[in-house]
Amino acid sequence: MIAINDTHDAKLKSWVESANDDATDFPIQNLPFGVFRPAGAEEEPRVGVAIGDQILDVVACRQQGLLKGKVFTAGLACDVPALNALMALGPDLWTTLRETISGLLRADGPGMAETRPKVEKCLSRMKTAELLLPVEIGDYTDFYASVYHATNVGSMFRPDNPLLPNYKHIPVAYHGRASSVVVGGTPIRRPSGQMKADDADGPSFGPSKLLDYELEVGVFIGPANHHGESVPIQKAENHVFGMCLVNDWSARDIQKWEYQPLGPFLAKSFATTISPWVVTLEALAPFRAPEFARPKGDPRPLPHLDSPENRETGGIDLTLDVFLASEQMREKGIEPLRISRGSFTDMYWTIAQMVTHHTSNGCNLRPGDLLASGTVSGPDEGSRGCLLEHTWRGENPIQLPTGEERKFLQDGDEVIMRGFCERDGFARIGFGECRGTITSVAAPE
Amino acid sequence: MIAINDTHDAKLKSWVESANDDATDFPIQNLPFGVFRPAGAEEEPRVGVAIGDQILDVVACRQQGLLKGKVFTAGLACDVPALNALMALGPDLWTTLRETISGLLRADGPGMAETRPKVEKCLSRMKTAELLLPVEIGDYTDFYASVYHATNVGSMFRPDNPLLPNYKHIPVAYHGRASSVVVGGTPIRRPSGQMKADDADGPSFGPSKLLDYELEVGVFIGPANHHGESVPIQKAENHVFGMCLVNDWSARDIQKWEYQPLGPFLAKSFATTISPWVVTLEALAPFRAPEFARPKGDPRPLPHLDSPENRETGGIDLTLDVFLASEQMREKGIEPLRISRGSFTDMYWTIAQMVTHHTSNGCNLRPGDLLASGTVSGPDEGSRGCLLEHTWRGENPIQLPTGEERKFLQDGDEVIMRGFCERDGFARIGFGECRGTITSVAAPE
Repeated sequence: MIAINDTHDAKLKSWVESANDDATDFPIQNLPFGVFRPAGAEEEPRVGVAIGDQILDVVACRQQGLLKGKVFTAGLACDVPALNALMALGPDLWTTLRETISGLLRADGPGMAETRPKVEKCLSRMKTAELLLPVEIGDYTDFYASVYHATNVGSMFRPDNPLLPNYKHIPVAYHGRASSVVVGGTPIRRPSGQMKADDADGPSFGPSKLLDYELEVGVFIGPANHHGESVPIQKAENHVFGMCLVNDWSARDIQKWEYQPLGPFLAKSFATTISPWVVTLEALAPFRAPEFARPKGDPRPLPHLDSPENRETGGIDLTLDVFLASEQMREKGIEPLRISRGSFTDMYWTIAQMVTHHTSNGCNLRPGDLLASGTVSGPDEGSRGCLLEHTWRGENPIQLPTGEERKFLQDGDEVIMRGFCERDGFARIGFGECRGTITSVAAPE
Repeated sequence: MIAINDTHDAKLKSWVESANDDATDFPIQNLPFGVFRPAGAEEEPRVGVAIGDQILDVVACRQQGLLKGKVFTAGLACDVPALNALMALGPDLWTTLRETISGLLRADGPGMAETRPKVEKCLSRMKTAELLLPVEIGDYTDFYASVYHATNVGSMFRPDNPLLPNYKHIPVAYHGRASSVVVGGTPIRRPSGQMKADDADGPSFGPSKLLDYELEVGVFIGPANHHGESVPIQKAENHVFGMCLVNDWSARDIQKWEYQPLGPFLAKSFATTISPWVVTLEALAPFRAPEFARPKGDPRPLPHLDSPENRETGGIDLTLDVFLASEQMREKGIEPLRISRGSFTDMYWTIAQMVTHHTSNGCNLRPGDLLASGTVSGPDEGSRGCLLEHTWRGENPIQLPTGEERKFLQDGDEVIMRGFCERDGFARIGFGECRGTITSVAAPE
């Protein structure tokens, strides 16, 4: 695990004033990476770091001579407007780059008088910038790591057999669709598909009526492992660059009809939204938590999925909120309604276990591959991470402030996910937002 | 469907003599594309076309001024050593390029005296060249399109419920792993994984003992569809560049323990082998066949998965052979043993139906995406496309000429898949080979 160091010091202030606001997601202790296009469409996309309400252009920093020596390489890796090359470099260079950027933005940084005018030229306003998909995702894998979610969904889809026998031994996962992963803010078109009502003789094809979100956390892979070689759990986090929020949109009616025997396919592959900023694992060092407290009687993981460090600090204390805003709410100027709050500490499996399991057969992970956690649901009703669970398949609709009800998502609904880490004595680290609005189904050709 | 044209004429001969051999996979009527490195490791990889026992270097052809006008663009798309850019161009340019290359290689081609010396400079011997992965595969999707395979496997994994109710309505598929797709000839390391014996209290971790191949056919996507828009079945084949052979290696013991509820994951993701040559859909025009003859009582596909053209010519009459050679057989100089022969006409779903189903929810396919058919098994015992079915889970082992028995694959076993199309009045079109040899499991770190 990455140690807590000077860059995490809660007393650090930035000369970018907005970064010192207690409510900001992006204080100088965070420094998440993304890809952006500054205001003005003629500008080329580039790699940037969020700081308060600004974005630091990493390419411009290098061009200004602000990244020297070892960090120059890390800067060069940012020349392509995707984080893959940076992710491939590994923890040592990530740390060096973080220290350098932290130094450039500190109110009391060394040589500040000389460097600050140069750094100022490298800042863009986040509000007017366009945030782009930060990574070229080679493969996207979706886990199923919340035992609460698996039990809830299992009890609806398989009442006799909600939690399958493998669940407590394997971090269950399936391959997702990489081509349709989009950045937050991209409109999500309601999918059509085959579905079959319980009382119908056969299936029909049409727009999904049971459209849902799934609140998940994403993990971006750093350096690859060689094809044919596995990553031991002790080294798993060396292969993890950072994290984002994921909305794994799901069409429950399509899913129910298609998912056996080979798993979800078109019910998920129409779109997956990720948040634009990738929070590094290093920024999260102060918020590490023990692994999930398995109830008495639950089996220990097999030895290759177990380690003292994973037990003690494999988890991350990350709070996750979901907000909903209907079109009516927006028209009336009503703020989005928070409909759930979950915690990433409620996951049965840790990130290190996911990486080790995924590579245990020799499968090669590549820089920029996305691993998602599966829906983050906790034991309480208020911590259920999708509408299927939240409304219990529509039995308990959500009441909106306009008087509207929601069993599943309607056209015009916007889903907003937020995530943050808080701990006494440390600065609050935010993930920014993961937003998506449902648009109507495509007209038939 | 692409029409039969002059390039299919069985009377065409090439001045590359080996292409006129009746037994060659690569007559002038075939012209499959691949990526190769000529003998001598210092050479850069490049796009080539197989002709007899030679490879035509497409980049060199352009540099020699042999690709002019409209075809120059297609030639430029081959400058990157991967077929993705060529695949993105679409049927018109593919046809033009095919006509041009056919013209360059014809024994009676126009201006032959002038061009042949130039073209000869663009040839490399296939035997000494290194054949590379031909495509950068963005997403890999694996279908399950043989009703015989689905019924056989289903009856082993779910005796009470072999063929699920959705099978005859949906071309069932799941997402595969793109990172571990390798080109034929790459050694395949036996995977380790979690498995649980029926009589064991809990799972254990170790090398797979039930390692299997799966004979499949691969389809490479050409031009992308827009995210959010589906491809009607009438236009589906405009999005298909060509085909290859696929060996979807499978660890049955890992699969059995992990696959519910989200489908196969590590049982498949350790490796998938594809053949190095991509046979274009145009080369296969003479071998089109009706869709699968659904038995009386089977439902018709829903309207979006049905069309007169698909019914009449949606299939492809492609014969598929699997050969096995143990290490002992190779040491004793015994030829590989053919253990099965199947036909792609036995598939319940056509390529067009796969493409239309895949995009029916708005999922975007990208140039170079790989769709595999699922195991090609027919109704007869001799046409079963994997050992699980062939030996019926090991109950009927295969006898090798050395006296060895095979229930599942042993270290040192080589699996060789071959495919070809034959029809009176047309040249035989071969797919080349898809080879892979099992090596021992990785030593623990």
